[in-house]
Amino acid sequence: MRTSIATVSLSGPLTEKLTAAARAGFDGVEIFENDLLASPLTPEEIRARTADLGLTIDLYQPMRDIEAVPEDEFARNLRRAEHKFRLMRRLGADTVLVCSSVSPLAVDDDALAAAQLRRLAELAEEYGIRVAYEALAWGRHVNTYDHAWRIVEAADHPALGTCLDSFHILARGSDPKGIEEIPGEKIFFLQLADAPLMAMDVLQWSRHYRCFPGQGGFDVAGFLGHVVRAGYQGPLSLEVFNDVFRQADARPTAVDAQRSLIVLQEATGLVAPPDPVVPTGVAFAELVTPDAEPASALLGALGFARTARHRSKPVELWQQGDARVLLNTGPVGSRDVLSLAAIGLESPDPAAAARRAEALLAPVLPRRRAPEDAPLDAVAAPDGTQLFFCATDQPELPSWTGDFTPVEYAPAPGTGIRRIDHLALTQPWHQFDEAALFHRSVLGLQAQESVDVADPYGLLRSRAVTTPDGGVRIALGVGPAPTDEGGRAQHIAFAVDDLVTAVRRVREAGGRLLPVPVNYYDDLAARYEFAPGELETYRELGILYDRDEHGEFRHCYTETVGRVFFELVQRDGGYRGYGAQNAPVRLAAQHALRLGR
Amino acid sequence: MRTSIATVSLSGPLTEKLTAAARAGFDGVEIFENDLLASPLTPEEIRARTADLGLTIDLYQPMRDIEAVPEDEFARNLRRAEHKFRLMRRLGADTVLVCSSVSPLAVDDDALAAAQLRRLAELAEEYGIRVAYEALAWGRHVNTYDHAWRIVEAADHPALGTCLDSFHILARGSDPKGIEEIPGEKIFFLQLADAPLMAMDVLQWSRHYRCFPGQGGFDVAGFLGHVVRAGYQGPLSLEVFNDVFRQADARPTAVDAQRSLIVLQEATGLVAPPDPVVPTGVAFAELVTPDAEPASALLGALGFARTARHRSKPVELWQQGDARVLLNTGPVGSRDVLSLAAIGLESPDPAAAARRAEALLAPVLPRRRAPEDAPLDAVAAPDGTQLFFCATDQPELPSWTGDFTPVEYAPAPGTGIRRIDHLALTQPWHQFDEAALFHRSVLGLQAQESVDVADPYGLLRSRAVTTPDGGVRIALGVGPAPTDEGGRAQHIAFAVDDLVTAVRRVREAGGRLLPVPVNYYDDLAARYEFAPGELETYRELGILYDRDEHGEFRHCYTETVGRVFFELVQRDGGYRGYGAQNAPVRLAAQHALRLGR
Repeated sequence: MRTSIATVSLSGPLTEKLTAAARAGFDGVEIFENDLLASPLTPEEIRARTADLGLTIDLYQPMRDIEAVPEDEFARNLRRAEHKFRLMRRLGADTVLVCSSVSPLAVDDDALAAAQLRRLAELAEEYGIRVAYEALAWGRHVNTYDHAWRIVEAADHPALGTCLDSFHILARGSDPKGIEEIPGEKIFFLQLADAPLMAMDVLQWSRHYRCFPGQGGFDVAGFLGHVVRAGYQGPLSLEVFNDVFRQADARPTAVDAQRSLIVLQEATGLVAPPDPVVPTGVAFAELVTPDAEPASALLGALGFARTARHRSKPVELWQQGDARVLLNTGPVGSRDVLSLAAIGLESPDPAAAARRAEALLAPVLPRRRAPEDAPLDAVAAPDGTQLFFCATDQPELPSWTGDFTPVEYAPAPGTGIRRIDHLALTQPWHQFDEAALFHRSVLGLQAQESVDVADPYGLLRSRAVTTPDGGVRIALGVGPAPTDEGGRAQHIAFAVDDLVTAVRRVREAGGRLLPVPVNYYDDLAARYEFAPGELETYRELGILYDRDEHGEFRHCYTETVGRVFFELVQRDGGYRGYGAQNAPVRLAAQHALRLGR
Repeated sequence: MRTSIATVSLSGPLTEKLTAAARAGFDGVEIFENDLLASPLTPEEIRARTADLGLTIDLYQPMRDIEAVPEDEFARNLRRAEHKFRLMRRLGADTVLVCSSVSPLAVDDDALAAAQLRRLAELAEEYGIRVAYEALAWGRHVNTYDHAWRIVEAADHPALGTCLDSFHILARGSDPKGIEEIPGEKIFFLQLADAPLMAMDVLQWSRHYRCFPGQGGFDVAGFLGHVVRAGYQGPLSLEVFNDVFRQADARPTAVDAQRSLIVLQEATGLVAPPDPVVPTGVAFAELVTPDAEPASALLGALGFARTARHRSKPVELWQQGDARVLLNTGPVGSRDVLSLAAIGLESPDPAAAARRAEALLAPVLPRRRAPEDAPLDAVAAPDGTQLFFCATDQPELPSWTGDFTPVEYAPAPGTGIRRIDHLALTQPWHQFDEAALFHRSVLGLQAQESVDVADPYGLLRSRAVTTPDGGVRIALGVGPAPTDEGGRAQHIAFAVDDLVTAVRRVREAGGRLLPVPVNYYDDLAARYEFAPGELETYRELGILYDRDEHGEFRHCYTETVGRVFFELVQRDGGYRGYGAQNAPVRLAAQHALRLGR
């Protein structure tokens, strides 16, 4: 189906919004009145610019407080409407959105509403314009889609139809099944928005917290199914009022918006992009740094051995069990401190995974490789992390490990690290909602609930995306404000079976671990009963402890180098979390260390 | 009464919170458990630090999910409680907060709740500790203060009392009058918080949006009156969970907190600081700049004349009617662009106004004056603007104008500017709530409703504080995110009686005004009917128009110089607003001009 986006969904001046929408592949736009008023371009110039960009103007919006009012007031409203119809002619827009009235002058009289909307439609028809009447969730007398439709049906004019908005309908808990009773040709327009499930005033919810389909908690796909079955033929249009998007760069937001519509249409069976290829594990994590020494020392203390070197690039492979860390001292992105730049994901079919990603508008990265290297498909996640699709050491597929030349190393007992348990990535503040949708739709991961974590300087939010078996676990985090962007550390967590032994070995090897305040252990003693000596060991070694209904979790952290620190984790009995309850203690300890207190 | 603050109300590590609370004059603190857990200090060290700072530890909090549970669970809870009682002994805290249970294990059985709380109190008594039982607004079975009190009364133990929290009580809409029925000595603790009136889930409201008394919409003073009449003798303690305060510097936040308690006690008749001395007008606005030229040119085009020069400082007085602008090229705060640095407020009693400000902890500024200059009392507003209390040309009081030497100037017709209509100040993101309370309590101004204004890059909030007759009007604004701090312009609005004439003169004098998009006038034509030619004149001159139930408003803006622009306004018939409806158009035009589009 054709796709459209309301200009209010994007940030910046009108011309930037139009350009961003066109670049992201939208077919059309809804022009939000305030964007037009604030633009230095005339309607004719906007029309030309839109056409140049290959966009149609699918809707002009909104017209408010028109119907069910005393005759003298309605006469003024018709006069106002006629001004706007003339404007729409200049703009080349043929459909106008009329929202159900919130005016104190409006009366609860469906017959009057229908009669006046019919007169409005008669006037609109003279200008070749169609009127799409929509029930606002907080409309004074008309606030459900079926009520709006009854009035449209009673008005019975070819230039009058209804506009359906998924937010207004789903936020009120209306059953969208009844949409199928509306003749498709009388659904003049469809606006789509999702929203996180919140118990709050619906108007505030609508104006500040809407998001793109799939980013929130509504069943927008189910909703769309009903509209399609009703026979709706118009565009799928996103109308999203969101305080964060208002501040975000319009270009990536428009791409995220378009991706949400692809995923939505896939869920509704309207399009069929390549199936997701769910990754089965983490092949490697790639760190970049101008100075390999501090990271090498820490990896060494963690029991990693430098096992190979890339044959054409300044990249070393550090390995222990199935945990692999690449240390890249090349000019990748010119990072000035140690950072986590890329993740290799084990894929049953790397090429198909890349096709899926590309179909979902993930930025495909140019291959940085010498002619003889294995082809590695990669895309950029919303936070800029490079995601490589890999098949490590599978005979039938090219393996990235073939690009590495083994080096001599002294075999050592290691610390029992088996694999990468999870990766924690800091998201740009403006893209937290998008990050979960990206990883879910592009990679086929499952998103867990978002949790708030108290840092000494504000609340952080964190949300994990995982495979069902935990083979891939990525924790997406975001700071309390845009100013924090980039200020928070990324980390790599390694899985061990025996954390106590592992920590003793790390300490013997000179690895520096994050000190944990002694008060934390007093609290553990109050909360849980431990075997004799157990808690003392944790206190001695700086091990943190958590428990859920499935099992137990023991973990500890290294000091931070650049933007990165490491975690060692021991999961027992199917524990599913990430020790979020201990995060405030960890964050405070990291702040204290950083400030030298 | 003694004042106290919960550590969770302030940002940063525990020791910084304690220091900030002490410096702001608090007598005690509530130690929030997570702050203790995350601290590297032992309980004994925290006790010593607190004592060194002259603070008492008035409460340890919270203890959760204790009561009305099966016996085996209660045994575990008692064990957990005993750990905490031992900790409190080390800490030197003698009162613990127990919140009504939210546990799914809790049963709706007041007798069981009372019996178990009595056993908890018996155990507490052994440690010399008192238990303050509080009804959470979202408690599973106990969520009103009277219900919590019935259980405490039934438990009937000297070590068990109740804790009252203004948020939990007022957020549920409970009538606080019943508090007077509780014996004062059984009210073990009082927690105070305000909150903006919002229709949302009460738990989310409580955890993210609490604010200091007077910053929100609750009648906290009325509430406190009931508690005082009940005979409560303990401290007034602030427990405020707020996402913004979590990110703000603890030191000014603690001062704002203490100020809120002074104002609250004044409203309740518990303290009597000097009465507010309401300013009667704006004596001057002071601009600072390293280069006087651009501002001088603009003031000249606006019809101002340079009438005098300060006798000892590089400050010029520009005047037209009663509008006075000081242009300071001295090293004030080393601003590198034109900024609004100070406001002179006409005061019937400048010395008394300064005493009020000082009693309310407004930072008193050192007088920057030569020995012969008139004494000028000044304080700093939360945004750093200097507020001078002045008596311009009143025979019985020293006048600041006496410090200026008249200079020769050519009398000119001017543009009809009569006075400063209002000043618009950009607030630091973290102090928007505080700014309104400051201006209200320190200066005796009245705060109007907060309004949201759409900027191309996010929503701005704006709130005006005024005198009843409009003699002083200050519009406090804040950007959408902390990153915007300082990025927004300040402005000075001058009142004229005939804007059309004024604008023609400004243009003739070469003053550059903000261009207004032509689409704006098409919309005006749709909304209002104008006299023939009127709208064309507005369009030609770039005049904006608004109307409220009282009257009409016409206004226009100059270009921006540094961080400052000027506005000319014509108010007719008692119009009360500031043209907020036109702000999106103005903001978009300013962005376009800045970006050269």
